[in-house]
Amino acid sequence: MKLWGGRFTKATDKNVEAFNASIQFDCRMYAEDICGSIAHATMLARQGIISDADKDAIVNGLKQIFEQIEHDEFEFSIELEDIHMNIEKRLTDAIGEAGKRLHTGRSRNDQVALDTHLYLRREIADVAGLLIQLQQSIVKAAEKYSDVIMPGYTHLQRAQPILFSHHLMAYFSMLSRDFEHLQFAWNMADRMPLGAGALAGTTYPLDQPYVADVLHFGKLYDNSMDAVSDRDYIIVFLEFAAVLMMHLSRLSEEFILWSSSEFKFIELDDSHCTGSSIMPQKKNPDICELVRGKTGRFYGHLMAVLTMMKGIPMAYDKDMQEDKEGVFDAIDNLKFALTIYAAMIDKMTVNGKHMRDVLEKDFSNATDMADYLAKKGLPFREAHAVVGKAVHYCIEHGKVLQQLSLEELQAMSPLFEQDIHHYLDIETCVAQRRTYNGTAPESVARQIASGKAVVTGEEGQLQSWNSVVSSVYELIK
Amino acid sequence: MKLWGGRFTKATDKNVEAFNASIQFDCRMYAEDICGSIAHATMLARQGIISDADKDAIVNGLKQIFEQIEHDEFEFSIELEDIHMNIEKRLTDAIGEAGKRLHTGRSRNDQVALDTHLYLRREIADVAGLLIQLQQSIVKAAEKYSDVIMPGYTHLQRAQPILFSHHLMAYFSMLSRDFEHLQFAWNMADRMPLGAGALAGTTYPLDQPYVADVLHFGKLYDNSMDAVSDRDYIIVFLEFAAVLMMHLSRLSEEFILWSSSEFKFIELDDSHCTGSSIMPQKKNPDICELVRGKTGRFYGHLMAVLTMMKGIPMAYDKDMQEDKEGVFDAIDNLKFALTIYAAMIDKMTVNGKHMRDVLEKDFSNATDMADYLAKKGLPFREAHAVVGKAVHYCIEHGKVLQQLSLEELQAMSPLFEQDIHHYLDIETCVAQRRTYNGTAPESVARQIASGKAVVTGEEGQLQSWNSVVSSVYELIK
Amino acid sequence: MKLWGGRFTKATDKNVEAFNASIQFDCRMYAEDICGSIAHATMLARQGIISDADKDAIVNGLKQIFEQIEHDEFEFSIELEDIHMNIEKRLTDAIGEAGKRLHTGRSRNDQVALDTHLYLRREIADVAGLLIQLQQSIVKAAEKYSDVIMPGYTHLQRAQPILFSHHLMAYFSMLSRDFEHLQFAWNMADRMPLGAGALAGTTYPLDQPYVADVLHFGKLYDNSMDAVSDRDYIIVFLEFAAVLMMHLSRLSEEFILWSSSEFKFIELDDSHCTGSSIMPQKKNPDICELVRGKTGRFYGHLMAVLTMMKGIPMAYDKDMQEDKEGVFDAIDNLKFALTIYAAMIDKMTVNGKHMRDVLEKDFSNATDMADYLAKKGLPFREAHAVVGKAVHYCIEHGKVLQQLSLEELQAMSPLFEQDIHHYLDIETCVAQRRTYNGTAPESVARQIASGKAVVTGEEGQLQSWNSVVSSVYELIK
Amino acid sequence: MKLWGGRFTKATDKNVEAFNASIQFDCRMYAEDICGSIAHATMLARQGIISDADKDAIVNGLKQIFEQIEHDEFEFSIELEDIHMNIEKRLTDAIGEAGKRLHTGRSRNDQVALDTHLYLRREIADVAGLLIQLQQSIVKAAEKYSDVIMPGYTHLQRAQPILFSHHLMAYFSMLSRDFEHLQFAWNMADRMPLGAGALAGTTYPLDQPYVADVLHFGKLYDNSMDAVSDRDYIIVFLEFAAVLMMHLSRLSEEFILWSSSEFKFIELDDSHCTGSSIMPQKKNPDICELVRGKTGRFYGHLMAVLTMMKGIPMAYDKDMQEDKEGVFDAIDNLKFALTIYAAMIDKMTVNGKHMRDVLEKDFSNATDMADYLAKKGLPFREAHAVVGKAVHYCIEHGKVLQQLSLEELQAMSPLFEQDIHHYLDIETCVAQRRTYNGTAPESVARQIASGKAVVTGEEGQLQSWNSVVSSVYELIK
Repeated sequence: MKLWGGRFTKATDKNVEAFNASIQFDCRMYAEDICGSIAHATMLARQGIISDADKDAIVNGLKQIFEQIEHDEFEFSIELEDIHMNIEKRLTDAIGEAGKRLHTGRSRNDQVALDTHLYLRREIADVAGLLIQLQQSIVKAAEKYSDVIMPGYTHLQRAQPILFSHHLMAYFSMLSRDFEHLQFAWNMADRMPLGAGALAGTTYPLDQPYVADVLHFGKLYDNSMDAVSDRDYIIVFLEFAAVLMMHLSRLSEEFILWSSSEFKFIELDDSHCTGSSIMPQKKNPDICELVRGKTGRFYGHLMAVLTMMKGIPMAYDKDMQEDKEGVFDAIDNLKFALTIYAAMIDKMTVNGKHMRDVLEKDFSNATDMADYLAKKGLPFREAHAVVGKAVHYCIEHGKVLQQLSLEELQAMSPLFEQDIHHYLDIETCVAQRRTYNGTAPESVARQIASGKAVVTGEEGQLQSWNSVVSSVYELIK
Repeated sequence: MKLWGGRFTKATDKNVEAFNASIQFDCRMYAEDICGSIAHATMLARQGIISDADKDAIVNGLKQIFEQIEHDEFEFSIELEDIHMNIEKRLTDAIGEAGKRLHTGRSRNDQVALDTHLYLRREIADVAGLLIQLQQSIVKAAEKYSDVIMPGYTHLQRAQPILFSHHLMAYFSMLSRDFEHLQFAWNMADRMPLGAGALAGTTYPLDQPYVADVLHFGKLYDNSMDAVSDRDYIIVFLEFAAVLMMHLSRLSEEFILWSSSEFKFIELDDSHCTGSSIMPQKKNPDICELVRGKTGRFYGHLMAVLTMMKGIPMAYDKDMQEDKEGVFDAIDNLKFALTIYAAMIDKMTVNGKHMRDVLEKDFSNATDMADYLAKKGLPFREAHAVVGKAVHYCIEHGKVLQQLSLEELQAMSPLFEQDIHHYLDIETCVAQRRTYNGTAPESVARQIASGKAVVTGEEGQLQSWNSVVSSVYELIK
Repeated sequence: MKLWGGRFTKATDKNVEAFNASIQFDCRMYAEDICGSIAHATMLARQGIISDADKDAIVNGLKQIFEQIEHDEFEFSIELEDIHMNIEKRLTDAIGEAGKRLHTGRSRNDQVALDTHLYLRREIADVAGLLIQLQQSIVKAAEKYSDVIMPGYTHLQRAQPILFSHHLMAYFSMLSRDFEHLQFAWNMADRMPLGAGALAGTTYPLDQPYVADVLHFGKLYDNSMDAVSDRDYIIVFLEFAAVLMMHLSRLSEEFILWSSSEFKFIELDDSHCTGSSIMPQKKNPDICELVRGKTGRFYGHLMAVLTMMKGIPMAYDKDMQEDKEGVFDAIDNLKFALTIYAAMIDKMTVNGKHMRDVLEKDFSNATDMADYLAKKGLPFREAHAVVGKAVHYCIEHGKVLQQLSLEELQAMSPLFEQDIHHYLDIETCVAQRRTYNGTAPESVARQIASGKAVVTGEEGQLQSWNSVVSSVYELIK
Repeated sequence: MKLWGGRFTKATDKNVEAFNASIQFDCRMYAEDICGSIAHATMLARQGIISDADKDAIVNGLKQIFEQIEHDEFEFSIELEDIHMNIEKRLTDAIGEAGKRLHTGRSRNDQVALDTHLYLRREIADVAGLLIQLQQSIVKAAEKYSDVIMPGYTHLQRAQPILFSHHLMAYFSMLSRDFEHLQFAWNMADRMPLGAGALAGTTYPLDQPYVADVLHFGKLYDNSMDAVSDRDYIIVFLEFAAVLMMHLSRLSEEFILWSSSEFKFIELDDSHCTGSSIMPQKKNPDICELVRGKTGRFYGHLMAVLTMMKGIPMAYDKDMQEDKEGVFDAIDNLKFALTIYAAMIDKMTVNGKHMRDVLEKDFSNATDMADYLAKKGLPFREAHAVVGKAVHYCIEHGKVLQQLSLEELQAMSPLFEQDIHHYLDIETCVAQRRTYNGTAPESVARQIASGKAVVTGEEGQLQSWNSVVSSVYELIK
């Protein structure tokens, strides 16, 4: 029997029941539902709304249910729609009357909001840990390969020589912004919705600040209608996830390129690749391709929730039940991707020598030649034109710039002198770019040092989140 | 042991294995995988590539595996990655050597493409059946309520009186276009990819037309690289699904509006509504809200596949494995939605009297008044202005147009005569709109008749699809 | 002649030139381009990279160009591709040699990044001002209509009586989160990219912190490759915009509903509505519909940039030029929407009496009846069932709860006493919900007070942003 | 003065006017608006609804306006909102009374629908022409380079040798499906909406089949409400465009890869590339990157319209005005992209020798080795394992398969015989894949022949579309 069926004269259609139910996916939040109910019951008793005896019965009953679920001894029922009704029904079966008092001053609208806030906070902390781990792998690799020089690209054309570490640290920077994005997502999720009732608050003298305290929330919602219909924190999390995956899709693209026969810059470990059912020679960077491909799924989840929320009136509408599956899927895939990428970077082989070798055969040092002339007084635009012609000359004669004789050079511009060959050396090109965020070894070393400090800051944040999360789950211990 | 592991020296990381595997979702295509393999093996034997004895062993082995899966006696393994490897491994365990010959002249790239084409065709036929059923429910309701007049809206403002049946039949038209969209999706899916190998075709003398014949495909792919990397048929299906859900989201919005206390135009059956955990009076149109909300999920799936395909090089890339989960989810949700909507329309109560009543108190007949003047020779733009002022006058005096006396009217325009009140009658307003697709009873009757003819045509199409589909599945009987 | 054409032997195809050019839209950033160049030139001189004389010529030349553009005396050329080349070419035409030195130590990659950062910061400040204005209109309306009671809805079914002000303030809360989102967007945009060169930094001793200082940037980029290829700040702004529009789409939906003949809760001012070309009575809430519809455009822009960035390798790729048009369009539409909504709320008419009247005829007080019983000791679940039956009884007998006699009530539950009718009073229902964020007058008053404090905080932020922005534009004065 | 202002007492707010107006973009459809009005007026006269004299005045007046617009002598006004009102107002100014009769039996809702249908049909024909042109360029290149062998890739790892023509023809196949998609879009657009009025049809005896005939439409809408609120034809066009751009994004990715120093498979013509403002050596494949990046914009437009249509009630809502800008932008960008790609393929240089050379140094022939063993009786799975080990052995010994001696091979499997080296020859590998859609020269020749037939069919379709389109525009001649 439905717990809300009083005014109804017909049973729910079975198809409707199945379509409508959320228990298939919201069962994942059982711990949160139980913690939230314990906090609610404790507060109800503290305010004298229910008796202490009832509260104790409820809390103990809930703890037992938690154990049952943990040990797979709880059968979820579609007919009971969602995690809330499943647990409440079982509680009432177990402890009787008291169980029926648990829902006093509460609606499923604020209850599910609470569960989702709690759940998301926990997952944010988990994801943060894995994000930091990936950043650490990057820093480690940047230190390990600090002397590897590679061609830097724009438009996938060789542009200027760079340190491999410099390239890696660009991703570190992206991930640091992702961490800031995640902090914003936490702030959005860190509001306590319980007590909003169905939409308008309740007639019971609830102590919402107390509940927020017990559940370690930083803020309350100012408005009850907003509390039950806010899904911004979910959207912001999906935004974070979409942008992070976009960053990983770029890294994936590069790992795929670098693993190709044409680039041969890195080799991924056998344990991170798979083969072909038909081509015996194949060693495919499947993980990188999957992560690149899964980016679509993340964009889709974001689009789904944005679309779902578009144009729906206040306060709660059933549409909002569609807020969860995408987030759950995003979390699962994100955790996998972050974990595997950290390991993949740790284990990959870097062909530093090959990267350096190819630079001998291209024009990555052309800018340095132009800078050379400009520093001798030629306006940069004219220097650029001279070198453009030099490149054209080289292509026609099958040479590269450092192979031009001083004579050839001086025919192009009298400003060229003996030292030009020094400035065309790849090592010089790299070493000269010592601007604040440039690719020179000392600049990259600074980036690495600063990166470590960033990680330390993030770890502090993570610790504080973890302590919030574990305090909540203490309630069921 | 992996079937592709020859050149590898290390085992796959467990996380990678789980992330990489598709068996969790592609197991859904076991029947298609088996039918495809039977067709392949039969052709191999027919071409003398394998012996008849091997073919018989393979076919029998596959049929047994089919029975095992149907009876839940088959354990899928993550380590074996996908449905293809799971079945092939089991087959080889069962029949030995012969099993190892099945993959001759085939790659997983063309095999999974074949499975997905077969699977999608089957689901298209299923979805088509449910779509027709919903169209029939609409026609039935249009006939049942053919005398109900309601306010027609633009901008959610009352615009002109219309037949309720006319309103419903607009959705019929949308669904008819959806059916055409589905036919286009079928055409896209009705190409046979097997024989493309990994990307370039194979060195075996395969008879692809024969396989197409056995599996009742209308066309072959012209190019093997296209055959393994084409996902257009999936995108087109998701486009169909997204547009259909968009249409249903509009119907849902209207059902939600009409079920409100403010409109009270319809009442949905108790079996299609649910209540509130806290507010005992509530009877919520949850299904309509869910369908409206799930529209987001469909848009998301479309976006996901489009994003996944963006910018990936030829031919097959692992990214493409991401093509399935969204489609599967779309199919499941679509079937539910179509089924429930047909039943919901069958069972809903229509408050025809109330709809008609409200028209007495609004200005839905204003256009008719303007037309009246225009027909008497006043240019339409001037007639429009006269009536605009009449409306303004009415609002100020708390009247509606049909309550204006002839004197009042003639003060506004001398063209008004006694018969104006006839033309302001709501029934007249409706009856007068007898343009081809207008709202007059005879026009709507024509729409209904034409709608029935459309359905008959669709049923013919469905029958032909069903016969294709069942012919394929005969292979495992 | 192209400024980069040295190594090329053929002219650019005219179609390619037009397709490739960005001047059609990036001309909008001329002030930013000029400010950035002034800062760059000043720094170059300060570091001794160019002479003071050159610097002075450049700065004066740029100021003149600024004046020309402001007075529409500057003709932009497609052939010169973008705003940077257009200005640099004109500068060189005007001042000769010195102009050719401006691009020293700079690439268009970091230059356009700088322009876009500057531009976006300016627009963020503008948008913030309009956002605050809208919040103020809401607060003003909430105070003005503080005694209006209306039905609160969930699932678009009447749920519980609420204050109209409470409903409005829910939107205030959403907009406050939007402001936080905007602050996050500012933080993302507040990084100074110049000096990153094409990707690797430059060989010139640039003083990036000094440039950041002159242009009032809070941070530098740590990594030059990240600096030229970061588009996160654009994505975050589009996220902010998408969510804000989602909120406005919900408000729009409600204004559309409330303006309908069925709801009649508000009437929008004539100046914010339009009519019909054919139906003289129509007064359509076009603005609300447009804003709701334009939400799609914002989601589209977000998806466009996310898709564009997916899977592209480091560092700068031309794809990234696609980052601007969507943002520009979003900004224009956002400013319109925010401005008009503030005015619309200021000028709308609220039919408070009608809202209150309809509550007499529904079951919005059913929860209060259940709470009544629960407070008398009946477990809430049982109280819910009793009231469910009472509602059903009322519907059958054409009554509402407050019309039930004490006898009828006591037949349902002996716990009902004389005072039940007091608790069913709509005013009581509202007054009783005095939880922290509930709908009781004192709670809403608190929300309004807290809302004003929020606005004050936002104004402080705005002032600081405005001062940053105007300091930058001082450079061209 | 607004043409709809009768019942209004206040003027429209200027911001509202600007926000609401569509003339900025719908002015693009002036020819369609005029043709539609001519058809409408002609029919009105034919039905005796207006006089022949009025009709003649209208038609001549409209033709003059057309000339004025064509010669830039027409000033569009924001105050008059849209193209319809701008033209109607000017017409009335010019011809007086008769002009005011033009709108008889018509609403802007069906008028704008008509304009958009006409406009889209015209653009579909234009786009079709360019699409065919690109397909022809591909066929031409496939014929020109029919003897070039290159490595075929899956997972961006070298997989099997293929013909370069085979690779190109895969894109031909994709574009052929795009043409089918475009035909579906035409069918969706080829319905005549005029006569639907605002939503319910009209009270005038319009002859809609006659109008359809004059404007060469294949079908009428069955339902007037559907006629004014259908945007499916726009969505389907955007779907076509999104998928086409997805295909081009893949081709772009490949051209970018192939233009890199690492691949060096092709060189794009100077006229299709651009340089760098700072790096003199750069020659960037900007067009390819732009097309890849613009894919995002197309996805965004599709999402925008889908979102806009989500959940809006019948019939016309102002939201629907948002249907145009995205389509217009898509059309413009599509035409550019198609035109430039055809020229780019015509002019690119293909480094056939280099492509062939690299195949000597990889394992692209490993499948052929496995097939060799399988054909000698070894089950394919075992053959695969043997070759896997052979590859591993080669990598360790710095060899490729064709460098293994018969002794080394026979140590791996006694089935190897002298002829193995023949089967490892790259030319043999290609020649052997003569399955229907394989890469063998005769198969590719067949594809080219069949491709030409496809183009011929498309040209027939185009001709028929062009004749429809030009017949319509005859009306203004």
